[in-house]
Amino acid sequence: MRVRLEHSKYGPTAVRLLRVSRKGNRHDIKEATLGIEFEGDFESAHTSGDNSKILPADTIRNTVYVLAKQYSPEPIEEFSAHLIEHFLTYNAQVSHIRIETKEQLWDRIRMGAKSHDNAFARNVAEQRTSLLIGTRNGVEIWAGVNDLVILKSAKSAFGGFLRDPYTTLKETSDRVFAATLSASWRYLAGEIAYSAIWHGVRQSLLESFAEHESRSPQQTLYAMADAVLRNFEPLAEIRLSMSVHDYDPVDLSPFGMQNANEIFVPSSEPESIVEATVRRDI
Amino acid sequence: MRVRLEHSKYGPTAVRLLRVSRKGNRHDIKEATLGIEFEGDFESAHTSGDNSKILPADTIRNTVYVLAKQYSPEPIEEFSAHLIEHFLTYNAQVSHIRIETKEQLWDRIRMGAKSHDNAFARNVAEQRTSLLIGTRNGVEIWAGVNDLVILKSAKSAFGGFLRDPYTTLKETSDRVFAATLSASWRYLAGEIAYSAIWHGVRQSLLESFAEHESRSPQQTLYAMADAVLRNFEPLAEIRLSMSVHDYDPVDLSPFGMQNANEIFVPSSEPESIVEATVRRDI
Amino acid sequence: MRVRLEHSKYGPTAVRLLRVSRKGNRHDIKEATLGIEFEGDFESAHTSGDNSKILPADTIRNTVYVLAKQYSPEPIEEFSAHLIEHFLTYNAQVSHIRIETKEQLWDRIRMGAKSHDNAFARNVAEQRTSLLIGTRNGVEIWAGVNDLVILKSAKSAFGGFLRDPYTTLKETSDRVFAATLSASWRYLAGEIAYSAIWHGVRQSLLESFAEHESRSPQQTLYAMADAVLRNFEPLAEIRLSMSVHDYDPVDLSPFGMQNANEIFVPSSEPESIVEATVRRDI
Amino acid sequence: MRVRLEHSKYGPTAVRLLRVSRKGNRHDIKEATLGIEFEGDFESAHTSGDNSKILPADTIRNTVYVLAKQYSPEPIEEFSAHLIEHFLTYNAQVSHIRIETKEQLWDRIRMGAKSHDNAFARNVAEQRTSLLIGTRNGVEIWAGVNDLVILKSAKSAFGGFLRDPYTTLKETSDRVFAATLSASWRYLAGEIAYSAIWHGVRQSLLESFAEHESRSPQQTLYAMADAVLRNFEPLAEIRLSMSVHDYDPVDLSPFGMQNANEIFVPSSEPESIVEATVRRDI
Repeated sequence: MRVRLEHSKYGPTAVRLLRVSRKGNRHDIKEATLGIEFEGDFESAHTSGDNSKILPADTIRNTVYVLAKQYSPEPIEEFSAHLIEHFLTYNAQVSHIRIETKEQLWDRIRMGAKSHDNAFARNVAEQRTSLLIGTRNGVEIWAGVNDLVILKSAKSAFGGFLRDPYTTLKETSDRVFAATLSASWRYLAGEIAYSAIWHGVRQSLLESFAEHESRSPQQTLYAMADAVLRNFEPLAEIRLSMSVHDYDPVDLSPFGMQNANEIFVPSSEPESIVEATVRRDI
Repeated sequence: MRVRLEHSKYGPTAVRLLRVSRKGNRHDIKEATLGIEFEGDFESAHTSGDNSKILPADTIRNTVYVLAKQYSPEPIEEFSAHLIEHFLTYNAQVSHIRIETKEQLWDRIRMGAKSHDNAFARNVAEQRTSLLIGTRNGVEIWAGVNDLVILKSAKSAFGGFLRDPYTTLKETSDRVFAATLSASWRYLAGEIAYSAIWHGVRQSLLESFAEHESRSPQQTLYAMADAVLRNFEPLAEIRLSMSVHDYDPVDLSPFGMQNANEIFVPSSEPESIVEATVRRDI
Repeated sequence: MRVRLEHSKYGPTAVRLLRVSRKGNRHDIKEATLGIEFEGDFESAHTSGDNSKILPADTIRNTVYVLAKQYSPEPIEEFSAHLIEHFLTYNAQVSHIRIETKEQLWDRIRMGAKSHDNAFARNVAEQRTSLLIGTRNGVEIWAGVNDLVILKSAKSAFGGFLRDPYTTLKETSDRVFAATLSASWRYLAGEIAYSAIWHGVRQSLLESFAEHESRSPQQTLYAMADAVLRNFEPLAEIRLSMSVHDYDPVDLSPFGMQNANEIFVPSSEPESIVEATVRRDI
Repeated sequence: MRVRLEHSKYGPTAVRLLRVSRKGNRHDIKEATLGIEFEGDFESAHTSGDNSKILPADTIRNTVYVLAKQYSPEPIEEFSAHLIEHFLTYNAQVSHIRIETKEQLWDRIRMGAKSHDNAFARNVAEQRTSLLIGTRNGVEIWAGVNDLVILKSAKSAFGGFLRDPYTTLKETSDRVFAATLSASWRYLAGEIAYSAIWHGVRQSLLESFAEHESRSPQQTLYAMADAVLRNFEPLAEIRLSMSVHDYDPVDLSPFGMQNANEIFVPSSEPESIVEATVRRDI
């Protein structure tokens, strides 16, 4: 019997970084956590314990801090591209690099009509994300948003679905539709205003979710993806994933009351998932 | 040998509730999770399995939904007070009731200059909280905020501290000061505008944190408590708890660079805690 | 208006420690995480930014490592007592010290009939805990277990409970009873075999849970506490807390089937809590 | 501009199931959580809100309970295969089904030399997993283990690695090697004793980890995979993923002490990942 190494990768999982840039008293801060994975010619490390082609995860981590000093980590897409270029240049043994970044978003603290120069609050739960996949042939750039929690209390139905002997679900024309949304989109090549587009796509997702006359999560997801691709030309495709939270109306009839779609029990965890990838035809 | 029951309590831990109130297309939503604990004359249940004084946790949960239908769960302080009054009235065996509420905050989705009628995003990570402790002699009312994450990149020093043979920490006059803040405050008796005050206290905490020339977390915590008590007369006392996250400057000297307080490693978990209770002298 | 500092405390929250002790190739490992809180004369730090009575959390952390080298951190109760003695001796400004320890339990990896000398697996989810509260007048010593998940599929009923108009729960004479158990017990003064007793109490809790003919969680909890206090003389009192997980039988009648207490839906989170403290009469 | 649906899927995410089987007083319990995803001809649901090909997630969930009653959910691999066969038979619109199962492992409570008939403790943190991917052409069967935490305090070195200007890591010939291991393996076609093999593979992973003279995590990972494939003929390939926890020796030299590889600080989260897939040559 023979076995062979089919695939391998390694790297640091959570390189945590804060950068403070100062213009007098006015500070800008940027906080992000990077996961970096190398693929390449590592067979001798696995099979014979020869580490001569293994750049330590510790070195990869140091490099993030050095390059964060030399270049700005803003935006995260360009910083990741710098890192990939650096690692590919100096590491002939590496063929693929994957850098996944999660940015913690900080807002300035409001002081009446003004914003504070150097004090911040992490107002939002969701994260801005990016994923760059670099090879000797080029770099694929994805951006996204993680864990954006949304809910609509109108314009949501679910009916006309397939029934079988185990179907007990009732059709509904008016329900609470709530989900944790994660989105990621791939950019076409070219000059991209990453931060401006990120805010625009996020807003487009929220607006199309809010306005859609939903017959199903599937239809709403597609409508959201469609809106984003129509509004933002630099995007080649978008993947949306909704973890749907059920909000069930409480049965108040045992207590002689009617629940006119008013009192609901939120599920403690998502009950189902709906995902789609929608691509621009070129 | 004899043993005796010194203390006991029970109740449902996470009663999840969403209420939608409708004025035409304009919907208001309120989402909260309640933990309810009863203390009282439960000895026979413990020692002889006689359940005749045990109102099931399931019934307590039902009651939350019934009262949420009859009364508004807005604000959470008044709703909790209704629940306590109900339970004490109909349950002679109960002497103390503790209701802890965590409200999930939802914002309307922005549509240009307007806000959407019935679509929402959970924009904030932190939670509005309340704690009511009711007995036959009255109700103590606490309100608060959980997990407000704050950071200042200026006006923070730490020096002149006690040193012993195991002290290696260096004094600093300029550091990143970051913490997860939880606050809770007790109200004096009287008519209270709970929601207005909550937003005011939250803002006062943020502003006093931002403006303080900090010599230590202890001093900043006290200054924040002091500001809140001076600004909001209905508060009797306030407890502040800061879980402090260390942001250590990266040593770039091995790479021939200077780190002028620019590149930091955020700790992956809080490193220390500082707590204080500050009370109004009456 | 005047305000005053009512109470304050501070300290490091998660001092992580592994100690390897070697007898030739045979290694023993001990992994624990300590939270340490100081109370004392810290008013000037809060009110005027005078840090001269503040021993830094960083120094407290260093001291844990120094004392872990000098003394064994085994058992955690004695190690915590050493730390308290050290801090009280050298810190006149400190009046109370609280040290909470969570021990990660590691088992040796089995190699056929033998156990490995220096390779381990973290086989258990639960944690061994201790809590020592030290003052100038002495030390209170608590030990415990966190998050021990238990389930019995027989000998569990719940009936004869208090009913009101909102009660819909059905009585049952045969149900699944599952809970996450946390226990902590206080020792009387004297020489204690901490580790031997810990294993004994844990086993006594499991056996009394298993054997009890339960009419309610309240009754079972008390029976477990009673068994422990009868079996272990060095214990003054014990607190038990059960987070009860509901396992509801699935209604299969829509599909023409009967569910003879066979198929259940576990709740995704605990649904209720039952707690009791039982004390030895002296 | 045109857009098109590139890919989509949906299904319930966490179908929680406990089955109690009774032979007199002797009960066996099986607890598992299933995630089920359908791919197929769902374009009309996405693009026009036609739900006629959408079997609700709620129905899929019901079906799990019905089939758990009809067949045993033991072992999880065969139960998943039954579910896939059922869904493919009755749902012409579905082309791919993916069922991921996490089994919570329960042990009988020990009563002296015997084990209890119907009382259990969840002694282990790790989970048994399976993943079945079914199409019209057949079913791929994976089994695995999640979150097995392992540590060795001897026989672990790391040296001779690639160095660049940002490398500061020191070589070591004796370190603590700790990781959270997840493994999954694909079976060849044929009759498989799933549960017996699962326990065997788990034990083989532990033993080969314990015995390996490690020059790197890469080498140990490969040695573990190699051992499993040599010992268990029904396996076609195995994927191993190690989230490596750093245990750094504490520098005690500022306190005039030497740390002879005795006192370590465990990292609060994994610091790096190493993964490999090893396949049998056929």
